[in-house]
Amino acid sequence: MIVTLRNSLSAHAENIFIESLKHLQAQYLRKKLYGKDLILIFNSDTQAIAKALSDNPSVERIDYSGKQYRLASSAWKPERTVIDIKGVKIGAGDVVTIAGPCSVESEEQIFSIAKMLSELGVQFIRGGAYKPRTSPYSFQGLGREGLRLIKSAADAYNLRVVTEIIDSSMIDEISEYADILQVGSRNMQNFFFLKQLGKVNKPILLKRGMYARIDEWLMAAEYILSEGNEEVILCERGIRTFDTSVRNTFDLAAIPLIHKLSHLPILADPSHGTGDRSLVPQMGLASVAAGADGVIVEVHPDPSRALSDGAQSLYPEQFREMYSGMKRVGEAIGRKVV
Amino acid sequence: MIVTLRNSLSAHAENIFIESLKHLQAQYLRKKLYGKDLILIFNSDTQAIAKALSDNPSVERIDYSGKQYRLASSAWKPERTVIDIKGVKIGAGDVVTIAGPCSVESEEQIFSIAKMLSELGVQFIRGGAYKPRTSPYSFQGLGREGLRLIKSAADAYNLRVVTEIIDSSMIDEISEYADILQVGSRNMQNFFFLKQLGKVNKPILLKRGMYARIDEWLMAAEYILSEGNEEVILCERGIRTFDTSVRNTFDLAAIPLIHKLSHLPILADPSHGTGDRSLVPQMGLASVAAGADGVIVEVHPDPSRALSDGAQSLYPEQFREMYSGMKRVGEAIGRKVV
Amino acid sequence: MIVTLRNSLSAHAENIFIESLKHLQAQYLRKKLYGKDLILIFNSDTQAIAKALSDNPSVERIDYSGKQYRLASSAWKPERTVIDIKGVKIGAGDVVTIAGPCSVESEEQIFSIAKMLSELGVQFIRGGAYKPRTSPYSFQGLGREGLRLIKSAADAYNLRVVTEIIDSSMIDEISEYADILQVGSRNMQNFFFLKQLGKVNKPILLKRGMYARIDEWLMAAEYILSEGNEEVILCERGIRTFDTSVRNTFDLAAIPLIHKLSHLPILADPSHGTGDRSLVPQMGLASVAAGADGVIVEVHPDPSRALSDGAQSLYPEQFREMYSGMKRVGEAIGRKVV
Amino acid sequence: MIVTLRNSLSAHAENIFIESLKHLQAQYLRKKLYGKDLILIFNSDTQAIAKALSDNPSVERIDYSGKQYRLASSAWKPERTVIDIKGVKIGAGDVVTIAGPCSVESEEQIFSIAKMLSELGVQFIRGGAYKPRTSPYSFQGLGREGLRLIKSAADAYNLRVVTEIIDSSMIDEISEYADILQVGSRNMQNFFFLKQLGKVNKPILLKRGMYARIDEWLMAAEYILSEGNEEVILCERGIRTFDTSVRNTFDLAAIPLIHKLSHLPILADPSHGTGDRSLVPQMGLASVAAGADGVIVEVHPDPSRALSDGAQSLYPEQFREMYSGMKRVGEAIGRKVV
Repeated sequence: MIVTLRNSLSAHAENIFIESLKHLQAQYLRKKLYGKDLILIFNSDTQAIAKALSDNPSVERIDYSGKQYRLASSAWKPERTVIDIKGVKIGAGDVVTIAGPCSVESEEQIFSIAKMLSELGVQFIRGGAYKPRTSPYSFQGLGREGLRLIKSAADAYNLRVVTEIIDSSMIDEISEYADILQVGSRNMQNFFFLKQLGKVNKPILLKRGMYARIDEWLMAAEYILSEGNEEVILCERGIRTFDTSVRNTFDLAAIPLIHKLSHLPILADPSHGTGDRSLVPQMGLASVAAGADGVIVEVHPDPSRALSDGAQSLYPEQFREMYSGMKRVGEAIGRKVV
Repeated sequence: MIVTLRNSLSAHAENIFIESLKHLQAQYLRKKLYGKDLILIFNSDTQAIAKALSDNPSVERIDYSGKQYRLASSAWKPERTVIDIKGVKIGAGDVVTIAGPCSVESEEQIFSIAKMLSELGVQFIRGGAYKPRTSPYSFQGLGREGLRLIKSAADAYNLRVVTEIIDSSMIDEISEYADILQVGSRNMQNFFFLKQLGKVNKPILLKRGMYARIDEWLMAAEYILSEGNEEVILCERGIRTFDTSVRNTFDLAAIPLIHKLSHLPILADPSHGTGDRSLVPQMGLASVAAGADGVIVEVHPDPSRALSDGAQSLYPEQFREMYSGMKRVGEAIGRKVV
Repeated sequence: MIVTLRNSLSAHAENIFIESLKHLQAQYLRKKLYGKDLILIFNSDTQAIAKALSDNPSVERIDYSGKQYRLASSAWKPERTVIDIKGVKIGAGDVVTIAGPCSVESEEQIFSIAKMLSELGVQFIRGGAYKPRTSPYSFQGLGREGLRLIKSAADAYNLRVVTEIIDSSMIDEISEYADILQVGSRNMQNFFFLKQLGKVNKPILLKRGMYARIDEWLMAAEYILSEGNEEVILCERGIRTFDTSVRNTFDLAAIPLIHKLSHLPILADPSHGTGDRSLVPQMGLASVAAGADGVIVEVHPDPSRALSDGAQSLYPEQFREMYSGMKRVGEAIGRKVV
Repeated sequence: MIVTLRNSLSAHAENIFIESLKHLQAQYLRKKLYGKDLILIFNSDTQAIAKALSDNPSVERIDYSGKQYRLASSAWKPERTVIDIKGVKIGAGDVVTIAGPCSVESEEQIFSIAKMLSELGVQFIRGGAYKPRTSPYSFQGLGREGLRLIKSAADAYNLRVVTEIIDSSMIDEISEYADILQVGSRNMQNFFFLKQLGKVNKPILLKRGMYARIDEWLMAAEYILSEGNEEVILCERGIRTFDTSVRNTFDLAAIPLIHKLSHLPILADPSHGTGDRSLVPQMGLASVAAGADGVIVEVHPDPSRALSDGAQSLYPEQFREMYSGMKRVGEAIGRKVV
């Protein structure tokens, strides 16, 4: 429930109102000025409180929103959200590129990729240290050592780090090494976790659940936003459908659809989106043409030896060629690819 | 079953072989020279015949293909199929544009669209006269009058006609008016119908079934090819998934995937692919970037009054802008959009 | 568009009304007394006509129904439709069993099955003569010879014949041999074909499209009903989902859902529903428990040698055991399995 | 990686082997006697270790299992797993019933349901205290107070408690009140969480992810089993498909399929499976007929006022009738419903 107070409310009236909530035993989650609106966010629909508040002269509007996202909507905030990460802006017009291996595997591997990215002018490196794997017997990542390695490589080559977080207990650890915390597809509706991420002071890259409708995805973002973290970046990474010709079905139309419904920036991930490196370059170009605010892609010095996602990782040479094509398509639609 | 005879076979040896089939009571469907290979296509896997043929010295190879397409594969024919329609080539490098209303509704409507297309340099007009509708009470098309109108408009403005055929009994009628016969998504596995279309001397535009895997789609094409019609154009038009945010999920990765698996040209239909005109322009651009051999799109003089598919039809002004964007994206990837 | 005339209308007033339609150039498809309602069914939504009729004092109600089924709904006809096939009633309470091979393959095969069915007291035999196969190189059925064989076996053992029809051109041929004409999953939205079947004087078994929502399925039934054939039997046969563990996902909840929405009888097909004979017996029992009006199942004298669908065909012994279990479950819910 | 040591290995040889692992810096996760096999479970595929072990004479077999479940398979353990919960056995033949409201809402509500269940002879009560909700503004559950209430009601009426756990940080809290810890559909692939649950001394009810294939579900179970908790109960609760006629598609064929692939007991949840109370009773009966080891169902004293899942909750009277029908169907297949 979101309660919007009247614009004209004096500080005194506001205090009286806040006091009155105590009598109702109503604890609001967050008080915030959104443009000219002062809003109070309650974490659950307490109908008794809503009833009591509905007659309060200080209250302008109550949004129950039980089945809808509010803070994530473009109706709520018409201007686009821009997220600044050490001087690089996501959502401001330029198309950012984020590249790197699925998993951090060794110092040699991650430094080799970091060097290539730096030479090309790419500003973000990705790589997993904690890997959510379908089988308990698959490689689960290097853990903290992986975080240390990707951070060293990023520092050496002036890159920003994107890495996955898989449990709330890791928030401090991952935040020490990463510039953007990535939430994977299988955690998109892990609501307890999302609430913790709403209290973190780092941007969250929220991948779409492979089974999530667009409204469910935006409500997952709403969980983070409603706890106070406004820096949410969405990422389309393919959905699960009947067609097993490819690993996932890349729902590229989600890019313009999110731009219509929400103010949040959205990236495209053609690597998971297709699961097949022979399809990634064309879909990388198509992602730019569809209007994505960024492209996140897997590249590995030697995909055939990758410990995870080898089939969808680009060879360095493929990446260079795709990146150059993305720049040309960006120009064709008036956007700079960085 | 496809039987390939030895290259070195003399005409005499070939005749003897053909005669021997009579003793086996084996009727082949088609005999054809594919490059240097002389092949015989049998419509069903008669195991007894296969056994008898397997020892025949004239036979080089027997492909059972029970679960695979053969004639549609790039393994069978490495060079890309090019289809010439009154001087415009599909599959030869240029990206063709096919535009027009969902249904032909009136002389004024179809001539107005034809005029606009002609002025822009578009070479194909589309429009349905027989409409497959989910409800029996929805508008079912103008029938032969619709065919007459679209043909008149096309002739007046030097355009080629693409229109849908929904039953074998209409083959002669539709062929009289159309340059390309379109098979809709719901008929993609109407095998009896596909066989009839395999005997027609017109190119067939085979839309992907909304529920069809890539291999099933190529096997549907195989039905047409195996009856002798080699001019099949595929068209990705969105698949049905759990996500109801849009009408269909536009599976754009099917474009590079088909180019990898098959020699047949493939178009993209962002109108049905999304079902929402606000998403069509970006997906039109993305279709070109993904490497489509053409884009087929719905445009209507007044979408709000369209008798079918109004929500996904572009306004003429939107179409002009998208077409111009498609040309720029085409240049960025080295292809001319016509 | 369905126009319902006032109950009180005299024959004279009715004639005047019908005459008036000529002035509007409005041809109705069918005139029929439904209970006390006299209705006129028009095949398309001609808005001009609707407008003219809306003020006509003889008209009680106009249903546009562009997105809904009408004649197939339980709102339209609260009592359940019962279909009598040579003395066996479908939809009247008893649960009918229809069994037999996927394809008719030989005289020996079909007579062997017919004998077993007859001994058990089963009243219907199934078997395909014209097979819609994904690949053009798979066995396509014995054609008319298959029809002849199944009819002979049925006549010899006093069974009723259910067989598939795949094109309108076969209506006369199939009707000569079959008691129920089956429309396969891939033809469920072949609307031209459905209209032809609406003019046939045989019950139609309409299998659910593997991609069809419940409302689309009922609208497919509506195509047949609106042309005058009221004997439609629905059949749930599994839908296509992301899960490839089984051939199809058997949507058994469709049974009570159809009973809620429609008056038409509905069968369950656990063979196609699962695609795996080891799962068929339990799902056959579950079909009865869920309230199906009948169960259609594949059984073959030697499934390992079947020319089609071997993996999902029961061994005769398995069928006997399942049939006996179905009878016990039927008793538990107060229905007789025949 | 699972390493099986030779049966004939002496205690001494075993000790030498275990010591040798230290030199390889290989830490095994768990050592366990499975029947006659002594196995060592390693949490990840360390290829170097596998290589070293492959020549060790004490090793009989190494299972890499990167893409397969092992401990959950019926190949690994042919006899069925039976889980005893305060004297009631799940998986031993009887069909258990678990019923109660979606959320614990008040003392009155939960005691009223507990009383009814007790009078009928039902042994398990369900009810959520921590609710994973799609929207952050929906009712999120009563938390610890809810746990306290359901435990009191269960104690008063001699019932066992099943309730959902949504984060590892709650393990101690929930374990204090619950007899079975339920993992919801959206957490089925929250692997970090699953590992923690593998160390818990309580049975885990693992609901199927709405997007999970059968093999992925069994691999999720494998995460728990491989950490040492062998008491995993699976629960089919519907999957997400294209069909929006119902909330989920109830994949009842998963019941016999799991029984074929695994030794773990499996329940059916017709409430989430359909999302519509008018379909639940028939699907409850069908669940028993399909061979489920138990049925879990939502029932509420006044569904129209439920704070969550009202549409799929049964009225008490409906539940009574369904329960009695389930007993009759159970008898028909030779199983007792408790």
